[in-house]
Amino acid sequence: MAQLSSARILLAGSLLLFFLAILFLNARQDPTDKPLQSRTLESDDKNCSKLRGRRIQKSVVEQRQPTHPMDPLTPSELQRVRTALRNASLLGGDDASQVLHSVDLEEPEKNEVRNWERDASSFPRRRALAILTVGGKYRNVLIDLDSSSVIENTEVLGSGVPAMSRAELDAATTIAQTHPQFLESLAARGISNASDIILLPVSPGWFGTPEEENKRIMKLECFLRANTVNFYLRPVEGIVIAVDLVQMRILKYSDINNNKTPPPIPKLEGTDYRLSVQTPPFFPRLNPISIEQPLGPSFTIDGHLVKWANWEFHVRPDVRAGMVISQAVVTDAEDRRKRSVLYQGFVSELFVPYQSPEEGWYFRTYLDAGEYGLGGRLALPLQPMNDCPGNAKYIDAVFAASDGTPYVVPNMICIFERYAGDIAWRHSEALVDDVEVHEVRPKVTLVVRMIASIGNYDYIVDWEFQTDGVLRVKVGSSGIVMVKATQMSSIEKATTDDLGDEEEMYGTLVSENTIGIHHDHFLTFYLDVDVDGVNNTFVEGKLVRRKVPPGASPRRSYWGVERCPARTEGEGRVQVNLNNPSEYTVVNPGKKTRLGNAVGYRVVPGNSIASLMDPDDPPQRRAAFTENQMWVTLHNRSEKWAGGLFPSQSHGDDGLAVWSSRNREIENKDITLWYTMGFHHVPCQEDFPVMPTVTGSFELKPANFFERNPIVKTKPNRVESCSHGNSVN
Amino acid sequence: MAQLSSARILLAGSLLLFFLAILFLNARQDPTDKPLQSRTLESDDKNCSKLRGRRIQKSVVEQRQPTHPMDPLTPSELQRVRTALRNASLLGGDDASQVLHSVDLEEPEKNEVRNWERDASSFPRRRALAILTVGGKYRNVLIDLDSSSVIENTEVLGSGVPAMSRAELDAATTIAQTHPQFLESLAARGISNASDIILLPVSPGWFGTPEEENKRIMKLECFLRANTVNFYLRPVEGIVIAVDLVQMRILKYSDINNNKTPPPIPKLEGTDYRLSVQTPPFFPRLNPISIEQPLGPSFTIDGHLVKWANWEFHVRPDVRAGMVISQAVVTDAEDRRKRSVLYQGFVSELFVPYQSPEEGWYFRTYLDAGEYGLGGRLALPLQPMNDCPGNAKYIDAVFAASDGTPYVVPNMICIFERYAGDIAWRHSEALVDDVEVHEVRPKVTLVVRMIASIGNYDYIVDWEFQTDGVLRVKVGSSGIVMVKATQMSSIEKATTDDLGDEEEMYGTLVSENTIGIHHDHFLTFYLDVDVDGVNNTFVEGKLVRRKVPPGASPRRSYWGVERCPARTEGEGRVQVNLNNPSEYTVVNPGKKTRLGNAVGYRVVPGNSIASLMDPDDPPQRRAAFTENQMWVTLHNRSEKWAGGLFPSQSHGDDGLAVWSSRNREIENKDITLWYTMGFHHVPCQEDFPVMPTVTGSFELKPANFFERNPIVKTKPNRVESCSHGNSVN
Repeated sequence: MAQLSSARILLAGSLLLFFLAILFLNARQDPTDKPLQSRTLESDDKNCSKLRGRRIQKSVVEQRQPTHPMDPLTPSELQRVRTALRNASLLGGDDASQVLHSVDLEEPEKNEVRNWERDASSFPRRRALAILTVGGKYRNVLIDLDSSSVIENTEVLGSGVPAMSRAELDAATTIAQTHPQFLESLAARGISNASDIILLPVSPGWFGTPEEENKRIMKLECFLRANTVNFYLRPVEGIVIAVDLVQMRILKYSDINNNKTPPPIPKLEGTDYRLSVQTPPFFPRLNPISIEQPLGPSFTIDGHLVKWANWEFHVRPDVRAGMVISQAVVTDAEDRRKRSVLYQGFVSELFVPYQSPEEGWYFRTYLDAGEYGLGGRLALPLQPMNDCPGNAKYIDAVFAASDGTPYVVPNMICIFERYAGDIAWRHSEALVDDVEVHEVRPKVTLVVRMIASIGNYDYIVDWEFQTDGVLRVKVGSSGIVMVKATQMSSIEKATTDDLGDEEEMYGTLVSENTIGIHHDHFLTFYLDVDVDGVNNTFVEGKLVRRKVPPGASPRRSYWGVERCPARTEGEGRVQVNLNNPSEYTVVNPGKKTRLGNAVGYRVVPGNSIASLMDPDDPPQRRAAFTENQMWVTLHNRSEKWAGGLFPSQSHGDDGLAVWSSRNREIENKDITLWYTMGFHHVPCQEDFPVMPTVTGSFELKPANFFERNPIVKTKPNRVESCSHGNSVN
Repeated sequence: MAQLSSARILLAGSLLLFFLAILFLNARQDPTDKPLQSRTLESDDKNCSKLRGRRIQKSVVEQRQPTHPMDPLTPSELQRVRTALRNASLLGGDDASQVLHSVDLEEPEKNEVRNWERDASSFPRRRALAILTVGGKYRNVLIDLDSSSVIENTEVLGSGVPAMSRAELDAATTIAQTHPQFLESLAARGISNASDIILLPVSPGWFGTPEEENKRIMKLECFLRANTVNFYLRPVEGIVIAVDLVQMRILKYSDINNNKTPPPIPKLEGTDYRLSVQTPPFFPRLNPISIEQPLGPSFTIDGHLVKWANWEFHVRPDVRAGMVISQAVVTDAEDRRKRSVLYQGFVSELFVPYQSPEEGWYFRTYLDAGEYGLGGRLALPLQPMNDCPGNAKYIDAVFAASDGTPYVVPNMICIFERYAGDIAWRHSEALVDDVEVHEVRPKVTLVVRMIASIGNYDYIVDWEFQTDGVLRVKVGSSGIVMVKATQMSSIEKATTDDLGDEEEMYGTLVSENTIGIHHDHFLTFYLDVDVDGVNNTFVEGKLVRRKVPPGASPRRSYWGVERCPARTEGEGRVQVNLNNPSEYTVVNPGKKTRLGNAVGYRVVPGNSIASLMDPDDPPQRRAAFTENQMWVTLHNRSEKWAGGLFPSQSHGDDGLAVWSSRNREIENKDITLWYTMGFHHVPCQEDFPVMPTVTGSFELKPANFFERNPIVKTKPNRVESCSHGNSVN
């Protein structure tokens, strides 16, 4: 016991020293987390405020060079894009009709990248794609980064319009703020100070009405901001402002107040969720819990190339998709071969239709990726310790502001190893007495995370790499539920019999005078699968009931697998059905396992969702990619965005459903798989004032890709290897 | 920088001291993990071998007293059951026809428990239920534990028979091992030593054949055990032995060898997965990672009562269900009221039908909970550090052996706090420039785990309690895939065109001469919901498309919620459908929120599964509870086991489908909800020689149960609070 007591004192002492050390270390910033060592905030910066990002000193801009064809545009490259556009008189003139919507890496052709993989000296030329409005025309402008010159300048035709730029958004808001009718509406509601109001810029959808025709429109929603950060829960209901972005004028102003008494602004009390404004009693205190890695992480980040366990992949921030995973390859333990799984994967579109036909609500049918962009201004720096655990490492992002200058979003992506107490595989023998075996392997995974705050909603997007070859894509949704103000402060006669009351409310009363409106979230993932090579075939393995002939067996039925390769894009459309289940496998028809099985990866659906809107409803036509849970198309580098290149105000004439309708042959070809997961959301009071995270996921899972379980030769945890004892070796 | 360097030295020094302290402490066993302080293994113990459990010294048996009505039977109580049965001449005679199948706690009536909650002095009387075969009759015997006497002794009628006892299993195996035909079969296959063979006792299903009529039967499957612990992958194919358990004789012996050449026994190489037999190269080494709680856990275990954060519940080991969660109540932060959620929850049945009509396979249609029991002999002690993380605490189990004596399964259940780097809720404002907010709360949960090793398969059953009120039930499946030997060593002509080849194999070639047979796992959960009180109503909120009249809105459609309370058991049957989705809510019609919403909890389906077998197929009739994904029945204390009290050889005349067909009224009543989740399993080579864990889950989730988000007043992680920094406060 004497030994134990001294050990305890030693333990307590070492813990104390440890914490002291940490206090000292907190003063310091780890430079390894910060590829850009200096970020000065220029005082004239309107587009990139405090949280959103910081401009970079010129000296820093020159320091970075791309080392991988998929590397994002560097500050220097973004500057060259700006120079090229200005030299071509596409940007920087006094002409207000010049709008820079976005600047992105123009990826090299797939074969160029493959060549580079074989021969590092053949680094593909670097190019950028800028989307601009110039003189009322929408243009795709391709810039060669070596020569800093425009090499292509194409007008984009079709019904859609580019995403609003930050500059347009600011201008539209400014115009509305001083609009006389708007000030009247506020006065009628007893609001004297327009600065107490937030005008939230939202995309208008498309509805085929004459007023929308040939215009670029933004709508503004109106909220009271006074004394809470949670203005979303204080809607000034009944005001809808449509702004013509080209003429930069109020296109339509409507106030329900002109016809009837508007509903009150819901009360302030209880809306603010910040710790700083909470009063006791607090939630029961939990003892500290942390994920510890005394020897540091097991992964390396070299620029944007990540290596961990048997995985290697490239990750980059992206204005539109938020984050792009490229060239995920897994090393086969059998022969140390690097085998491709996924050439590229990202969130292609995020459709959020609200389910109310009312004047202030019908148009809220957002295509968040295409209309706002999950990266850029909507991906805020991650908060260490809370957005990601203490053992996470971070990657910064650099984007172009509205005037073309680069700015940094620090810590936009985090990467960490996860050990959640789960089990990778196990067996212990219990049924047979004299076979003694109890083997268990803990499950440690690598998580790559970004978070997009798209207005009220926050999307936590995780790509989780497992040592067993599974790639799990997980999306968490939190933030503030979108609410409508109502006269109703409570449901008066809601008994079991007339629960139907709620129907006319288009949602749930989540607080006094506050209705959380029904809506959906559809996340459509682009998955350019390259299963052990470029040419793949999508095979639906239908689990079908088979009858047994009488007398052949005491069993009357069993199920077998009927494998149907999708020969055309039409055959590559999948509607998931519980009663007619299938295994969905992407196989490489040119590869077989030693046993002759087709080498493949399965898509394991999770949180599958079907749209409930009418196929002819305009929002559904824009989001026709939600008609199926899976699609398989022929790979085409221009077909990346499920809602089309310009989904804003689109009539549905571009996008996944249109491409698929060409019905191209897809057997033994370079194919792209599209999977849509999501949530129907019937709000409840628990969603007020901020929603507990709702999570869903799907998987890509090896199926006869490996010759055997690839993690048999892993080792269990040992008590000795870590402080409190819990470690993987 | 000098400051930083000294901090680094301090940090390194403290870490070193910390690890030294841990090395000392490892010598010690924490007595708080071990309610039973002494376990001696009696040398004459046949039924409880090394891993399975240990008999208890008499002095220890007397030490424990139940303190909660749901507490499992104590060693002392089990001894009293044994005494009562012997005194009643139901056990211990020389009569081989006396078989003790199981001894369990006979739970008090629900109202007795409720009375005790209000008045601790009214502790309900303790009773036990023993299931016996006596003179060929199956008997439910109720024992009063105060008087140690039998108070009821009822013959159980119906088609089913009790689960095999360990003694029967041993006896049947012994008979078969010396059966002349069996020895001949082995010799014909070149196996000279019968001790190299494992005869796996399996339940025979029911198929209405004359040979089964009025018999209790066990079948034996034959495997070669030499030089591997993984005998499951070395089937001696084509031998089927049926044993009559009453007459204890071979009922039917068949060997495919009599008609045609049997397939070879698949090769030994690569079958053994133990670390000790692996040879380099090993999987890439990962740095240690651990979950640390320097101040210890935040939960308490008082006997079997667990308190953590806002949750309180009782957990006990159970012979049949493995683990039973009782009286899960959540404390409402609004007014500190304890509010009931779930009176009881457990795995009621686990159906695993193999999908081959062949002679050696058609009968493999196991009802694991009822035919084997997930607790008792199949729940092995959990391995600290690997089955559960280092911060876990453990609960032991005590069960009755075949002769009635108690034995201990140490560490059968573990409880730990999980922090996986996830987020409980968050919002950061990105769209509106001048609102600065970034609030995040890390997600920490409490996991209660048991693992059942049912022959080849391992089921990891987690009940995860979340602070936001969500109760997540998660099942992981690992272990060894069940295989059939085949002549085929590879698929010769499996091109994309004839992938259909596999159909006739009833599975996948997972190794040379080894077919992993198609099968399913259905896990049916018993959920006696008591949402804020006993009387509840199940409401299906159908999300239905509504058309908008032309001209009323630019939108043509939206979805609304049509709430249909289930008035009868017929209306309480649910088939989940992606295209006709619903919210499934259990509400308390007697309770409303302050806003008038019905107080409720939703069942959020996950891994829903439908049976693909013919409804008239005998195995499907026994497992008719898989016809729907959800059922709601009137609470009845005798209706606990979805496949009936005795599912072995049952004709389907007892069980959930039969009870539900009574179509009792269930509106505003004490109701039980049944949810079935599961997996179809098309094996693949990655499943060889041991399967990576496949995981699924569903949730019970508050929906207008709380007045608002119950975890707004939680605190974020702080850097200072833990060693490397990652902690919750």
